[in-house]
Amino acid sequence: MIPIISIVGKSDSGKTTLIEKLLPELTRRGYRVATVKHDTHGFEVDREGKDSWRHKQAGAHTVVISSSNKVALIRDVEKDLTLEEIREKLIQDVDIILSEGYKKDVQPKIEIFRKEKHKELLCTKEDNLIAIVSNQTFNIGVPCFHLEDMKGLSNFIEKKFLSSKVEEGISLRVDGKKIPLKPFVRDFLTHSIKGMLSSLKGCGKARHIEIRIED
Amino acid sequence: MIPIISIVGKSDSGKTTLIEKLLPELTRRGYRVATVKHDTHGFEVDREGKDSWRHKQAGAHTVVISSSNKVALIRDVEKDLTLEEIREKLIQDVDIILSEGYKKDVQPKIEIFRKEKHKELLCTKEDNLIAIVSNQTFNIGVPCFHLEDMKGLSNFIEKKFLSSKVEEGISLRVDGKKIPLKPFVRDFLTHSIKGMLSSLKGCGKARHIEIRIED
Repeated sequence: MIPIISIVGKSDSGKTTLIEKLLPELTRRGYRVATVKHDTHGFEVDREGKDSWRHKQAGAHTVVISSSNKVALIRDVEKDLTLEEIREKLIQDVDIILSEGYKKDVQPKIEIFRKEKHKELLCTKEDNLIAIVSNQTFNIGVPCFHLEDMKGLSNFIEKKFLSSKVEEGISLRVDGKKIPLKPFVRDFLTHSIKGMLSSLKGCGKARHIEIRIED
Repeated sequence: MIPIISIVGKSDSGKTTLIEKLLPELTRRGYRVATVKHDTHGFEVDREGKDSWRHKQAGAHTVVISSSNKVALIRDVEKDLTLEEIREKLIQDVDIILSEGYKKDVQPKIEIFRKEKHKELLCTKEDNLIAIVSNQTFNIGVPCFHLEDMKGLSNFIEKKFLSSKVEEGISLRVDGKKIPLKPFVRDFLTHSIKGMLSSLKGCGKARHIEIRIED
């Protein structure tokens, strides 16, 4: 599962700037990063009059614009999506997701705080605060990085979220619902299925197996 | 699997206009439609200076902008995606996908042809042409609808693509690759897995089963 970290902070604390400084350090280390920004004002990403804009105006639920180096998508939703829903529905092929804001979401948070702008932190440890980036030191039991210390912050993120990427083992969903499996059943299913598949062409050294049955 | 139809035609034949007329008729019938447009010129959907634009400039692989009624996503790709890849990676919660163009893709095609604009069709039946929309009649073995007959065209699409939605049977992916299964193996796997699961709590009347094994 792709890890999510929320970069939070009070208004004008420098969230976008922090993400702008963190991104090059993470990409330099070979990680692909997705960012998520909440927009409360309503936004207009497409250009009036363009074909894709005309599709959306005519009632398309989703519009995709595809080219050889990037893809854009605009789709309707019925409510604000949580970061988990955004990850599930939209994000692939990245190593980590950084959200700007999303203080109320349950994901782990890094708060940016500049002493010249505010007097108190936005988060407490109860908000799942895992680190602070600031020009002031806080002793509240989470690491504190200097505003410019993107190496230190990236080391912290790398160690905590990017070391082991793949969730091992077997998962089972039935009619959309995840079924919890006890250790014996996990082992039994894993070994039975691997055994059944082992003699099939192309399945000898299977590392990721995905089976769907639709009735 | 969400069905895909490509609306094709020579330049200036009226592809966007046809999609604009077809969309309200399909949505009126309760279907959610996604459209896909290829852009060869490179496109700029985001606005310079916006936070999400700054994230992308700073090296984000994917940028998501989320609000209470719509979500936008811009992501890097390494090559032009096929319609199948676009469906797999990006599109959810719709009943049908209409692409504008994509003549070279393998998906079924509806050609728009206006006799005042061109002399010959773009497609033949070998291109997987399934219907023509035109102000001229063609006798090449596929249905032909008048330019304004969105009801007839929608009936055709509905009957051919929207009646039964779920692909039955079993599918197997190993390390991301779809493994073809012969009938005996399909039956053997389906019955073995259903048998194994039948005594598990919550799996008695399983209709959709999804198993993932990660090594």
